[in-house]
Amino acid sequence: MTETSLIGFSRGEQTSSTFRAVDPKTGSELGTEYSHSSEGDVQRSCELAQLSCLPMASLSGQKKAEFLRLLADRLDGAVDSIVEIMTVETGLPEARVRGETGRTSGQLRMFADLLVDGSWVDARIDRADPGRLPLPKPDLRAMLRPIGPVAVFCASNFPLAFSVAGGDTASAWAAGCPVIVKAHHAHPGTALLVGKLIVQSLEESGLPEGAFSLLFGEGRIVGQALVTHSVIKAVGFTGSRSGGRALFDLASQRKEPIPVFAEMSSINPIFLLPELNMDEMENIADGLFASATLGGGQFCTNPGIVFYPNNGDGEIFRDSYAEKMKDYPPVAMLHQGIRESYAKGIEEMVKQKGVEVLALSDLSEEGNGGCDAGTCVLNTSIECFLKNPQLTTEVFGPTTLLVSYEDKEDLLRVAREMEGQLTASFFGHKEMLSSHENLLDLMETRAGRLLFNQFPTGVEVCESIVHGGPYPATTDSRSTSVGTGAILRFARPVCYQGFPDEFLPEELREENPGGIKRKEG
Amino acid sequence: MTETSLIGFSRGEQTSSTFRAVDPKTGSELGTEYSHSSEGDVQRSCELAQLSCLPMASLSGQKKAEFLRLLADRLDGAVDSIVEIMTVETGLPEARVRGETGRTSGQLRMFADLLVDGSWVDARIDRADPGRLPLPKPDLRAMLRPIGPVAVFCASNFPLAFSVAGGDTASAWAAGCPVIVKAHHAHPGTALLVGKLIVQSLEESGLPEGAFSLLFGEGRIVGQALVTHSVIKAVGFTGSRSGGRALFDLASQRKEPIPVFAEMSSINPIFLLPELNMDEMENIADGLFASATLGGGQFCTNPGIVFYPNNGDGEIFRDSYAEKMKDYPPVAMLHQGIRESYAKGIEEMVKQKGVEVLALSDLSEEGNGGCDAGTCVLNTSIECFLKNPQLTTEVFGPTTLLVSYEDKEDLLRVAREMEGQLTASFFGHKEMLSSHENLLDLMETRAGRLLFNQFPTGVEVCESIVHGGPYPATTDSRSTSVGTGAILRFARPVCYQGFPDEFLPEELREENPGGIKRKEG
Repeated sequence: MTETSLIGFSRGEQTSSTFRAVDPKTGSELGTEYSHSSEGDVQRSCELAQLSCLPMASLSGQKKAEFLRLLADRLDGAVDSIVEIMTVETGLPEARVRGETGRTSGQLRMFADLLVDGSWVDARIDRADPGRLPLPKPDLRAMLRPIGPVAVFCASNFPLAFSVAGGDTASAWAAGCPVIVKAHHAHPGTALLVGKLIVQSLEESGLPEGAFSLLFGEGRIVGQALVTHSVIKAVGFTGSRSGGRALFDLASQRKEPIPVFAEMSSINPIFLLPELNMDEMENIADGLFASATLGGGQFCTNPGIVFYPNNGDGEIFRDSYAEKMKDYPPVAMLHQGIRESYAKGIEEMVKQKGVEVLALSDLSEEGNGGCDAGTCVLNTSIECFLKNPQLTTEVFGPTTLLVSYEDKEDLLRVAREMEGQLTASFFGHKEMLSSHENLLDLMETRAGRLLFNQFPTGVEVCESIVHGGPYPATTDSRSTSVGTGAILRFARPVCYQGFPDEFLPEELREENPGGIKRKEG
Repeated sequence: MTETSLIGFSRGEQTSSTFRAVDPKTGSELGTEYSHSSEGDVQRSCELAQLSCLPMASLSGQKKAEFLRLLADRLDGAVDSIVEIMTVETGLPEARVRGETGRTSGQLRMFADLLVDGSWVDARIDRADPGRLPLPKPDLRAMLRPIGPVAVFCASNFPLAFSVAGGDTASAWAAGCPVIVKAHHAHPGTALLVGKLIVQSLEESGLPEGAFSLLFGEGRIVGQALVTHSVIKAVGFTGSRSGGRALFDLASQRKEPIPVFAEMSSINPIFLLPELNMDEMENIADGLFASATLGGGQFCTNPGIVFYPNNGDGEIFRDSYAEKMKDYPPVAMLHQGIRESYAKGIEEMVKQKGVEVLALSDLSEEGNGGCDAGTCVLNTSIECFLKNPQLTTEVFGPTTLLVSYEDKEDLLRVAREMEGQLTASFFGHKEMLSSHENLLDLMETRAGRLLFNQFPTGVEVCESIVHGGPYPATTDSRSTSVGTGAILRFARPVCYQGFPDEFLPEELREENPGGIKRKEG
């Protein structure tokens, strides 16, 4: 049987170009065939999105919230079916799939709550002053309005929470934007299952058809067609640095450039400060082991590099961590492409001058499906590290580079040279923090989230989270892709001057029927 | 005598490449010679900016506010000297110079007030919940922090309010960013005068030297060097579409792309709705005449195109407006380049099929300095307009294209095809507005500010203003370059997880010493 795209409430064309998902645990193709979307599918999804722009923009927060909550319930209700297909397509364990389903429905409900509260629109009011001299002051009111249709690219490592109904889609809908999703080739069945739940929920909520389409196809063809289509006004992406940069370049070179919110590459440095004692070092090795192997090391916030003091306590950390990682059995990675990049990445790192291998699974051992990969721990000195930019390349998977340093000046030099990161974590003593202020201040300019005595994996979904950071962590350091702040990516301010009260958006009317927080000038 | 750049608190090099300003009223070069900045000047200004990043970022709102207020006072105190040089360099009348000085010092004080209030940082707090299941909730707190050094390009048409100490610079400083300004070649003396006031104010306030540099030079050399320098993290620009796009392209193609906030091109459409009667049409002709000739028509918000109903009342508007514009005497434009573009733009428009000239000053009449230019009123039908995209090109200056339409459907067609605009204005009857909702909704997706029965010139500087809009009005529709919202361009969210209270920024501490508004999750 051949499945096709979802174009609004109908299905896309059957095309001659098809693909199947692969079970990463066995390497065998799964039964269902998927048609790559045709040019006509892309065009029709964009036309529908365009048609739904004004209807979507005119929806009340309440109405959008009802839809998001209905979809959240539907997702939770379908968790058994999701488990069935997603475990096979991704190799992820059932508990993770159930957890990610809850995270995804939770995100939808979080945006529903934000919409019901209503204050997110940053309403600003300056009332008229006809008697002002030398000129009367006009009545000006402003609020955030939807940016227009958004293209969303599914992430391979979050087949639910950063895919079809994930954070990018939810935040774009919440802002009032239609969304066209490009599925990830590794989990088309999961994508289609979620996509169908979306279509049902849209229909039942009475939302416009063009609010959602789901396309299958290669990034270079369908993805490119989508990002360069004049109807699309913003892009959300989670994936590789090269993929995100390619979309950014396409979007920037359009006749009408559009913003790309690509969350790409981060090695999430951890700084073990010199004051740590032996017991603390042991505990950190435990915690780091759990963090670095979580989800098979396939998280954007996976800690890829650790700076430890070149002293006895530091050595205890290093040896203890390497021992733990050595004993960790290989696990299936998400898909063959990730497995290949992982092996190639490690191969490159091992070749670098001054890099010592402390633990390394046999990478020629290909497991059942060829997707199994084990852990890797590498070690080097601060001199080698500072001389070789290659050592800051992200190797996506359960690998860690340990770097021993001599003194605090070394860490400042590291921080000065460091590229943008999603996170930077510091382990040390509270009483000593003031002596590291320069390091903290520098790293603040390099990362979206700073942590003290905590590991960066496990991204809390809430108001205060920042999942973003300077390039190459993302293509827009002024944004977050997790948490309520993610909605701000897909909204733009609009000002209304001199309009009669009854023609203003509800949020800007005198009586403030929703009781939202407003800035009044 | 030869003047040089201001590099921090010292002066730039004397180079062999120099220029002089020209009095647009006489066409003669002024006495002072200015050295184009050397490569070394650019490099040194960037190094100083880099050195001042952390000190700038650590300044309290109060401290930044003191500096902005001191500078505002200095500007007001220097108004006589500013009048002296700026009237000669720009041809603008004394009253305008005094007004713009007040607007510029007013902007600085507005940002000072915003900083003292302190709530602009969008502080968000989610407190820890160690007992949460299945996992404890960490303590997360986020706020906006400075993006890093900002390059600002001076506007020719606002030699104060959008130049050296103008809105871009003030908002970047307010956010805590160092600023490097490239002066406009048409008013280097005004730029230098203001720049020296800045240096004095910085020194007196004890702010770091790298907080400000002022460069002279051509966009293609100095501008390009600045925008591609790795230290620069954002760009503010007000000027032509080609100039803004060139900077945007350079910035997007960097190894580390950076945001460009370019405010470029807008024809600011005015829609005269069919219900208007004769008296109203006469009044609108009066108002439009004042708006279209304000500042010699050299405002970004100048109304360049007016859609009027093809009926008797519409004809009254058309004829009355053309008569007024015919009688308006030529005025000196800001510089020869603008004068040349204006003449060329009109020449192109007049050539277009179906375009009728209702009023046109003799463009070969070059005035004393060759910078004089008069008004122009062109007229065409909706059919010709819709067939010819050339007719939507901005012609910067006191010219207006009038377009007669038949019915409301015509206006919807216009709106659907229209490029992004800073403003869109509607004139009509309040009781009839609901019958034009489709038009309003469509234009909301095309413009940053919508006006009812008001003209777009005269941009109020306040909380609620939006001076921005979809491309090509700006390169980032999610921003405003006027009003308090302008600060958001130069700030990025940073999250602090698990930090002891005393190491958090003051804005995020439990006691909230500044009493700012915060979102508490």
